[in-house]
Amino acid sequence: MNLNNLYEKAFEKIKEANNIVLISHINPDGDALGSSLSMYPILKRMGKKVTVFNATKPLPLYLDFLPNFNKVTDKLPKDYDLMISFDCGSFDRLGIEEKPPFLINIDHHISNTEYGDINIIDPKAASTSQVVYNCCKHNGIEIDKDSATCMYTALVTDTGSFQYDSVDDKVFLMAADMVKAGVEPAFVAKMLFQRDRLSRLRLLAKAYDTIEMCCDGEAAFVEITKEMMEITGAIKDDTDTIVNSVRAIATVEIACMLREDDEGIKISLRSKNYADVSKIAQKYGGGGHIRAAGATIKGEFDFEKVKNMLKEDIKKALKENR
Amino acid sequence: MNLNNLYEKAFEKIKEANNIVLISHINPDGDALGSSLSMYPILKRMGKKVTVFNATKPLPLYLDFLPNFNKVTDKLPKDYDLMISFDCGSFDRLGIEEKPPFLINIDHHISNTEYGDINIIDPKAASTSQVVYNCCKHNGIEIDKDSATCMYTALVTDTGSFQYDSVDDKVFLMAADMVKAGVEPAFVAKMLFQRDRLSRLRLLAKAYDTIEMCCDGEAAFVEITKEMMEITGAIKDDTDTIVNSVRAIATVEIACMLREDDEGIKISLRSKNYADVSKIAQKYGGGGHIRAAGATIKGEFDFEKVKNMLKEDIKKALKENR
Repeated sequence: MNLNNLYEKAFEKIKEANNIVLISHINPDGDALGSSLSMYPILKRMGKKVTVFNATKPLPLYLDFLPNFNKVTDKLPKDYDLMISFDCGSFDRLGIEEKPPFLINIDHHISNTEYGDINIIDPKAASTSQVVYNCCKHNGIEIDKDSATCMYTALVTDTGSFQYDSVDDKVFLMAADMVKAGVEPAFVAKMLFQRDRLSRLRLLAKAYDTIEMCCDGEAAFVEITKEMMEITGAIKDDTDTIVNSVRAIATVEIACMLREDDEGIKISLRSKNYADVSKIAQKYGGGGHIRAAGATIKGEFDFEKVKNMLKEDIKKALKENR
Repeated sequence: MNLNNLYEKAFEKIKEANNIVLISHINPDGDALGSSLSMYPILKRMGKKVTVFNATKPLPLYLDFLPNFNKVTDKLPKDYDLMISFDCGSFDRLGIEEKPPFLINIDHHISNTEYGDINIIDPKAASTSQVVYNCCKHNGIEIDKDSATCMYTALVTDTGSFQYDSVDDKVFLMAADMVKAGVEPAFVAKMLFQRDRLSRLRLLAKAYDTIEMCCDGEAAFVEITKEMMEITGAIKDDTDTIVNSVRAIATVEIACMLREDDEGIKISLRSKNYADVSKIAQKYGGGGHIRAAGATIKGEFDFEKVKNMLKEDIKKALKENR
């Protein structure tokens, strides 16, 4: 079935339903929460009872500016008749146990397992919110400022502020349309990128001091110890983008962050242009994508030992697919 | 005269000319070089002799991916008949001495002194490249991939990757059009943001360790000493975005970077939402805009003394326009 048919089928189902649950994957990002919240005003306007559900507690605070963020709950209503999932590749990542009465699955991940009764998967979309946008447009649904702010935020977060490979003319045309609907891009950018934590900058100070280049500058390691976290008052979220910043060094193809954990050393791997880091992660019992992967080396707390092991894997990965 | 008339007059003049110089302001940024280089393929196609001039040596290397970057020269041809300036607010910032035979001045700064024979100033444009784009569109000029890559890069750099107040639907529509002309947004983003220097990260490590919050968290200082620069091998460019990162702390309205220089202490001021930092800079003989300003306190090398002075100014600025 083509996407337009699926858009129509989905809205037929929505029209019939009375009590709808909007759900997104556990540990939600901007696209997961943004996409699900974008449908809230639309369904309310259609006279539906609507629950926005996410199983994660607490929700990521940096998204608290999304309209209706305060409506998100971790309690499912008893007698809902339709569930719509957003940005979630597989059923187990919804964080619920019982099968819903009817499930519409909206996503843009090519790996989606099509666990819904209707599956609207568009791997060409830059964000799940772009699928939602296309679906609304096709069905002639008006997108108000609140919905648009959620859709736009989802688009910005899932494209790294219009910087990823997925960005094409359709992405920019959607963004233009979102502005026409009332979105203020500078406001969204301020909310997302101008509410940093001092603890994060203090942690960067410690972490960047540990950067070690290897493989003729094509790879780099960065370390985070428990002590650094304690001294700086940093939280886990503060470590999020460090490995990306190290990958951004001009000569670097593979960046690797090592973080001391209760269980052992957590490794986060990133590649820039061609190297496949998912293979390295798999070797240590982890997983991920070609450009971003990770694993935890349990029971191991010796940074130097882990780095020496990884150097061999990285050298190999740098030679392949070149 | 309205902008459309000016676009037409400018192209009439261009058609008549044979030997054209494209010039941009000294210490060029992405918009200055991008805008001027965007016209190179267009004028060459029209059969003109074209010189892309900039008085600065060396040019910023991070822009070396711009098509025809290697054509930029600091030598003026002898017998040119038309000069077009891009993104330059006043004649003295062109870095030339003699008046050109005829000058078309294209810019988006409201402070432009209208020093040209034709002045195309559009303060509503997010970048000078948007003015160039509008001018080409109005005159039915085809924009090829090379031109579009320059225009798009200029747009991205002058909007902070679509994050500044200037971003509206027209900006996104232009971006969409640039993609249709062949621009690869991810390529431009990689060239601009994925070629970082290790020396810069090492400098951040030292600098972030000096962050001092004041005024109940509404202001923050960050220091850079000559010693830090030497130890890390950092260059001046490496200090560029540090003050912006400090301003990005959630509670901060005013961020101030102090950098030890041969002459004294250079202060860079940034505000986030309302405070006017240009007044503070003016008090110390400097200048700038409401949100970004700077000054050099000559003969003074005592960081604590300067911070104590500035604290009073900052307290005042935080109370005004609130």
